[in-house]
Amino acid sequence: MCAEMASLARPRERILETARQLFHKHGIRGVGVDAIADAAGTNKMTLYRHFSSKDDLVAECLRAAARNAAVLWDEMAAAHPGDKLQQLHAWVRVAAECVGADDRGCALANAAVELTEPNHPARRVIEEFKQEQRERLARLCAEAGIPRADLLADSLSLLLEGARVSCQAVGPKGPSAKFAEMAEAIIASFAA
Amino acid sequence: MCAEMASLARPRERILETARQLFHKHGIRGVGVDAIADAAGTNKMTLYRHFSSKDDLVAECLRAAARNAAVLWDEMAAAHPGDKLQQLHAWVRVAAECVGADDRGCALANAAVELTEPNHPARRVIEEFKQEQRERLARLCAEAGIPRADLLADSLSLLLEGARVSCQAVGPKGPSAKFAEMAEAIIASFAA
Repeated sequence: MCAEMASLARPRERILETARQLFHKHGIRGVGVDAIADAAGTNKMTLYRHFSSKDDLVAECLRAAARNAAVLWDEMAAAHPGDKLQQLHAWVRVAAECVGADDRGCALANAAVELTEPNHPARRVIEEFKQEQRERLARLCAEAGIPRADLLADSLSLLLEGARVSCQAVGPKGPSAKFAEMAEAIIASFAA
Repeated sequence: MCAEMASLARPRERILETARQLFHKHGIRGVGVDAIADAAGTNKMTLYRHFSSKDDLVAECLRAAARNAAVLWDEMAAAHPGDKLQQLHAWVRVAAECVGADDRGCALANAAVELTEPNHPARRVIEEFKQEQRERLARLCAEAGIPRADLLADSLSLLLEGARVSCQAVGPKGPSAKFAEMAEAIIASFAA
């Protein structure tokens, strides 16, 4: 049995992975804990033994999504060691792949739209994630030697955020299909 | 009695306006028809006499939001008759005002995130609205004499979409606060 299968055999991991898939497909408010427990082959009592509430489970799902993004950053750095400009172009490619791979967008941004309660425990996860992504990108732009690195990073961040929402609004053949071209044009204009 | 109050005295208009406010505040899935009928000072039977279903009411709310956007375009054209470049700068200002005015974003984009059902009647309203906004902006960029007008319009569209989501994710002091500065930098780079 491979490590991933072994981990999914544990109820907590199975519930978490099932919840992520169902939230992704139907939206957070479109799925109840009963359906999650059922699809994970367990029951509500077990779910509540591992997660104190649905809100807690949602926050944990978003933390898992954030960890996936951290892996992508590590891979970009490893693929172009020390070459910050190449890492920035890799960011564009990886971001474009994320946009094109899936027309349901960013789990954390979607959660920000869905969860209107200001005190929802997921809100802090979303804020910290988005701020961390923004800071990493700004640092990369600065280290790549591009002037006005903060403004460039913010422009690229919003462009990506917009592409992932546009995909949900008009589908993957809309403006989001040109994300990489637009991002590279913006980088070139700042670098010029 | 002013015209608007007279129109709100009609149950249909009152239900529509109340639904828009509640959907905006709590999300579409966060509000049921009972709560809408109640807040509009009417009852579910009256609501269903005017709207065949909650889905139909949602689609009608989004059509109303789309009509508001059309008014903004008319005002921009009227403020700078014949001067397409000034109209484009006015678009940036108006868009920045929309971003800053409200941290719950675009009703139509939010609905695209919330409503995961592919056959929801709101989906056509959302698609048509987003496509129309994109075409109007592309036409304006072309008439303002800017090269690669389509790519510029798509970049500005995604930047705006991203700013409205970012506002919900990290609040109005995040990257979205610099929307106008970013948009003008992109316009300048295309015009250069």
